[in-house]
Amino acid sequence: MKIGFIGLGLMGNLMAKNIHKSGFDLTVYNRTSGKTDEFKKLGVKIASSPKELAQRTDVIITMITAAQDVKQILFGKNGVIYGKNKDLVVIDMGTIGPTAAREIAERLEENQIDFIDAPVTGSTPKAKTGELTIFVGGKKEVFEKVKPVLLAMGKNIHYMGGSGLGQAIKMINNQLIAATITALAEGMLLADVLNLNRKLAADVLSTVPALSPMMNLKLSDYVKNEFPLLFSMSNMTKDLKLANYEAKKTKKKLPLAEKNLQLFKKAMKKGLGPRDFSSIIRVID
Amino acid sequence: MKIGFIGLGLMGNLMAKNIHKSGFDLTVYNRTSGKTDEFKKLGVKIASSPKELAQRTDVIITMITAAQDVKQILFGKNGVIYGKNKDLVVIDMGTIGPTAAREIAERLEENQIDFIDAPVTGSTPKAKTGELTIFVGGKKEVFEKVKPVLLAMGKNIHYMGGSGLGQAIKMINNQLIAATITALAEGMLLADVLNLNRKLAADVLSTVPALSPMMNLKLSDYVKNEFPLLFSMSNMTKDLKLANYEAKKTKKKLPLAEKNLQLFKKAMKKGLGPRDFSSIIRVID
Repeated sequence: MKIGFIGLGLMGNLMAKNIHKSGFDLTVYNRTSGKTDEFKKLGVKIASSPKELAQRTDVIITMITAAQDVKQILFGKNGVIYGKNKDLVVIDMGTIGPTAAREIAERLEENQIDFIDAPVTGSTPKAKTGELTIFVGGKKEVFEKVKPVLLAMGKNIHYMGGSGLGQAIKMINNQLIAATITALAEGMLLADVLNLNRKLAADVLSTVPALSPMMNLKLSDYVKNEFPLLFSMSNMTKDLKLANYEAKKTKKKLPLAEKNLQLFKKAMKKGLGPRDFSSIIRVID
Repeated sequence: MKIGFIGLGLMGNLMAKNIHKSGFDLTVYNRTSGKTDEFKKLGVKIASSPKELAQRTDVIITMITAAQDVKQILFGKNGVIYGKNKDLVVIDMGTIGPTAAREIAERLEENQIDFIDAPVTGSTPKAKTGELTIFVGGKKEVFEKVKPVLLAMGKNIHYMGGSGLGQAIKMINNQLIAATITALAEGMLLADVLNLNRKLAADVLSTVPALSPMMNLKLSDYVKNEFPLLFSMSNMTKDLKLANYEAKKTKKKLPLAEKNLQLFKKAMKKGLGPRDFSSIIRVID
């Protein structure tokens, strides 16, 4: 299986390297060409356009932040659809939401290209070790075909069903992370208000059933009042927007997720976009 | 140490029995006298008023829902302060909030009575097995003195510092539980909206770092759409009110906890007060 990879950012860079390490025949493309240099040194082939990448490979993986950019890469000038060979499969591993994933799946299908949505969770530490959790939506037989390359990047691979359902569970997962971390931040502010030392509060909270592993991971951020970057405020804001958008599309409301999005937007306005999302505590007062 | 117990409700009943089983000399009082019958059968002594209970015991434990009722028992007609003997210690184990706990501590101190706030978590299953988690606020030496009786009811006992700090961490804990369960409910509604089967979503969510043990416990409620009573909506509403009240007192706001309280109030209006708080999903739409 010849693999093409597009989007060598923080995550994609590490994921592509694991594909290469696993012995797959890898070709990469990146809009910012500087990012391909280290791959050239590793002996990885470089394509000059998504179209060229499609001509040379069997599976194309995209790891790009915005849905609009994924569409440009696939359907724009010199896009993937213009270079497709027989049996091409496209796997999008970014978080673009179920609606965009379903739109892309449909449009690719019109071009006889199979599509899998396969967003990931675990951030850079798990991307580096090839232990990402991957949520998959799309045709089962297409998933089975590309599973070996997913296993080069991830450990826990969950097949969720048809197109967009990988994105669906990712939305839910990130909405939960965002809500629980904002709640933790409010809990720490409540400790301040009540003159309860944050360190002592954190020590006790780390032992109670109310705390998730993710909340436990972030406890020390609030004790030290330092927020090392693991997942950016801007990415989490994007994901919360997607979750609320999907609910609104069917005339549903998620009141807590909506209020949380307001807080995240406030953080963005305050310039916290590139910071870790746990710094949400800075806009609560 | 002679122990007096007031408030033989769902939780208090089980806690008092564990004190009796541990071999302490126990006397109970309850406003609803029918609740003392089974204790009489066990050979436990019955007092006819809080005053009489205070005259006969060294430590009085109150396990009563509302702060106002605790104050009535302590300071009202035939209240505890009128029957105090030398070295009496009062331990309140309900969830009444830091402000009420500090008021009570002060007023008891004026009457030369020591006070410990020691709210619990773990609900009836842990109350039954004597494995409650207990959060303690008050003077360290008073805590050390009454620790043996706390150990008859609980396993993890956390001394948090001065008066009200047991209540403080309990507020934070319950605010976290309320927020995380509402977020889980919204996650499940998002699954519905996205045509993702709740059972499949729950299976995957049970494996991710975003889920706390408490959320994991409640996952099956949302899959079955049944909400067996573990902790009532009305009690959780009370606790969320207390958390928001404490923040407002110092001109702080907890936006997510405030929005969540709105939802809980809506559930109360809908008559869900006696139901488990996980049925909060019924007012999200």
